[in-house]
Amino acid sequence: MRAEIIGVGTELLLGQIANENARWMSEELAAIGVDVLHHTVVGDNEERIASAFTLARSRVDVVLSTGGLGPTQDDITRDGLARALGIAQERHPEIEEFLREKFANLGRLMPESNLVQAMVPVGCRFILPDRGTAPGLVWDGEGARMYCVAGVPAEMREMMTGTILPDLRSLSGDVVIASQVIRSTGIAEARVGELLQDLFESSENPTVAYLASSGEVKVRLTAKAADTEAAAALIAPVAALVVARLGDAVFSVENESLEEAVGRLLRSRGWSLSMAESLTGGTLAGRVTSVPGASEYFVGAAVTYTIEEKVRVLSVSEETLATQGVVSAEVAHEMAQGARALFGSDLALGLTGVAGPDAHGGQPPGQVWIGFEADGVSHQRGFRAPGDRAQVRAFAQQAALDLVRRHCEGLALPATW
Amino acid sequence: MRAEIIGVGTELLLGQIANENARWMSEELAAIGVDVLHHTVVGDNEERIASAFTLARSRVDVVLSTGGLGPTQDDITRDGLARALGIAQERHPEIEEFLREKFANLGRLMPESNLVQAMVPVGCRFILPDRGTAPGLVWDGEGARMYCVAGVPAEMREMMTGTILPDLRSLSGDVVIASQVIRSTGIAEARVGELLQDLFESSENPTVAYLASSGEVKVRLTAKAADTEAAAALIAPVAALVVARLGDAVFSVENESLEEAVGRLLRSRGWSLSMAESLTGGTLAGRVTSVPGASEYFVGAAVTYTIEEKVRVLSVSEETLATQGVVSAEVAHEMAQGARALFGSDLALGLTGVAGPDAHGGQPPGQVWIGFEADGVSHQRGFRAPGDRAQVRAFAQQAALDLVRRHCEGLALPATW
Repeated sequence: MRAEIIGVGTELLLGQIANENARWMSEELAAIGVDVLHHTVVGDNEERIASAFTLARSRVDVVLSTGGLGPTQDDITRDGLARALGIAQERHPEIEEFLREKFANLGRLMPESNLVQAMVPVGCRFILPDRGTAPGLVWDGEGARMYCVAGVPAEMREMMTGTILPDLRSLSGDVVIASQVIRSTGIAEARVGELLQDLFESSENPTVAYLASSGEVKVRLTAKAADTEAAAALIAPVAALVVARLGDAVFSVENESLEEAVGRLLRSRGWSLSMAESLTGGTLAGRVTSVPGASEYFVGAAVTYTIEEKVRVLSVSEETLATQGVVSAEVAHEMAQGARALFGSDLALGLTGVAGPDAHGGQPPGQVWIGFEADGVSHQRGFRAPGDRAQVRAFAQQAALDLVRRHCEGLALPATW
Repeated sequence: MRAEIIGVGTELLLGQIANENARWMSEELAAIGVDVLHHTVVGDNEERIASAFTLARSRVDVVLSTGGLGPTQDDITRDGLARALGIAQERHPEIEEFLREKFANLGRLMPESNLVQAMVPVGCRFILPDRGTAPGLVWDGEGARMYCVAGVPAEMREMMTGTILPDLRSLSGDVVIASQVIRSTGIAEARVGELLQDLFESSENPTVAYLASSGEVKVRLTAKAADTEAAAALIAPVAALVVARLGDAVFSVENESLEEAVGRLLRSRGWSLSMAESLTGGTLAGRVTSVPGASEYFVGAAVTYTIEEKVRVLSVSEETLATQGVVSAEVAHEMAQGARALFGSDLALGLTGVAGPDAHGGQPPGQVWIGFEADGVSHQRGFRAPGDRAQVRAFAQQAALDLVRRHCEGLALPATW
């Protein structure tokens, strides 16, 4: 099955955002064995949207568009679709009712202009959204099948995951593409490449691919087979080799995020966690609590951005601050102790450092110190993180979560961070 | 002058990377007044590459391709171009010499396969690179002008900046495109559309466009003129109308994020901020501290995820918790009071609610309560946020930051959130 993805939006053509929707959709389509042959981007122009639909349906089996289904005047994907199909539009009472209820539930008055979202090209089906107010449109009349979804990433993903991918999986018949993602942290991408070079060069089914981000390397194994079991059987021996070679840098063999893996480990141990954050400014707690059910193991965090609050809230000693400086192993140690005392948790972290762009506490941007405390365990890790403010904070989060993971699994500390 | 950008590379169609090259090129082209009408992506397939060139040259004045000029077997953009133009290729001695020297200078032996990069479709000019080994190609024979550059971002940017953009600037005459982005919060996208409908419908230069995300609507005005000053003069009166119509929902007329705008306001007032977070779990503090220099106004945050910690760290009363429930106006109020007392800040926020997916404290997912405290000011706002866990948290952050903004600017509270 061959597909084309049409991105609609002048903001893409002005370079204000990259076409990340097409990237995500392509990745998901590849995973179910759909070949994406083209991406196309057009602006908010009815004639060019219509031409893009017409061209796409002439050359592939499935056309997916994203964007231009909102309630404002520049949202004209449905007009472009109707024009390409040469059909009129009609207002659909079920959508109208859905929209009125959606607004009523939020305690808000619906602007009448929102009713444009209840318009549907005659002969199209629609998909009601959970998120947002833009119904998806489906054309399964003559020619290629066409799907139109919203451009807001969360809304697009909801319809892809809930409706379109299952639809296409059932239509695409006898081939499945299955992937396993093995995630590792505290290891450089080039080192992963060295350790897996022969697997990368020799393997065709499954294929081996790498994807690196701040402090993390994913290894994706993708196999094509007649069914899921057969694909899994192709992947299993290669996955076992990858895990053996990467060793304890691997934190998940089922594509969990590091915060999910840490949550799973804490829950299984029955341990609670708290933290004191300076350079990460609450983002580490934010990441831990992004996992549903985090209240089972996460107690709390103190974000102490000033020296005074480190002393007052966390009882970091003024002498330590004066002699060691605020970005130091000892302050990280005392911050972790302070968090553990304040929140009464089994484990605690303390993070201090320099997110940048400027130096701080006599230390250069990127310098990070992390303290870890548990019963009878107290250690500190320091390292210099690369990148800008956001990347330094992401590295610090990653290293801190990895300390918790290693403690829960009884693993040694990594050689470097 | 109208342009199309063709991205060549199967990695784009597999979703391994986003088309960031097209985004950057589009932004640069807009800045010199070139209208980008289409982005197209095709894989490493000679026939489809040729078709993409043929279609593009039929509908625009300038075609730019990126990717597929390397030395390996899957680099076939030059073959696709030659096929589209119906011309042969010839090896160019000047490029061959350049390649041999480039390798010699690196002290490496040039693989003979590299000589494919010395092939040029007959009648094309070439651009020798500083970075890398891939010469750019230029067709300025009949029909649209066409440029092919490498897909490695630094190599692409070098040729765009050094050769192509200056070329096009001199061809397109003296036109620039300038944009202004006005950002608003606490107002629905459809309401923005209603308020600006006549501007949207009547205006051509500047054009008006909307972009909505969780709790925020951006209005982008884009003008074309002979120079930057003239473009700004076209935008100014329309921007003034937009700001007047959207009123105090506007928090920035220069594309600041809400956390940047709040930081600017706090700094100008000399006020400090702290917060107590439950449902947002540290993400609000994380957002405030994502702005460099936040230490000038941000003191700290207490992330209290359990009822016990709300009592112990923030002194929320057990009676309030028992009678009102943990997700209530009164608990938000006491959390904000607790944060203000703990951190000694001028302003303080308290956030409690249900991020979901499950109900909590007898309240449904999406229920948010925010308390705000300052000298002589104490109020609480409750609302139901739409969407999943991440969106509910984003809405809660947005509403909380907006309370701070409104207090700093002396504005009334919004009618709804």
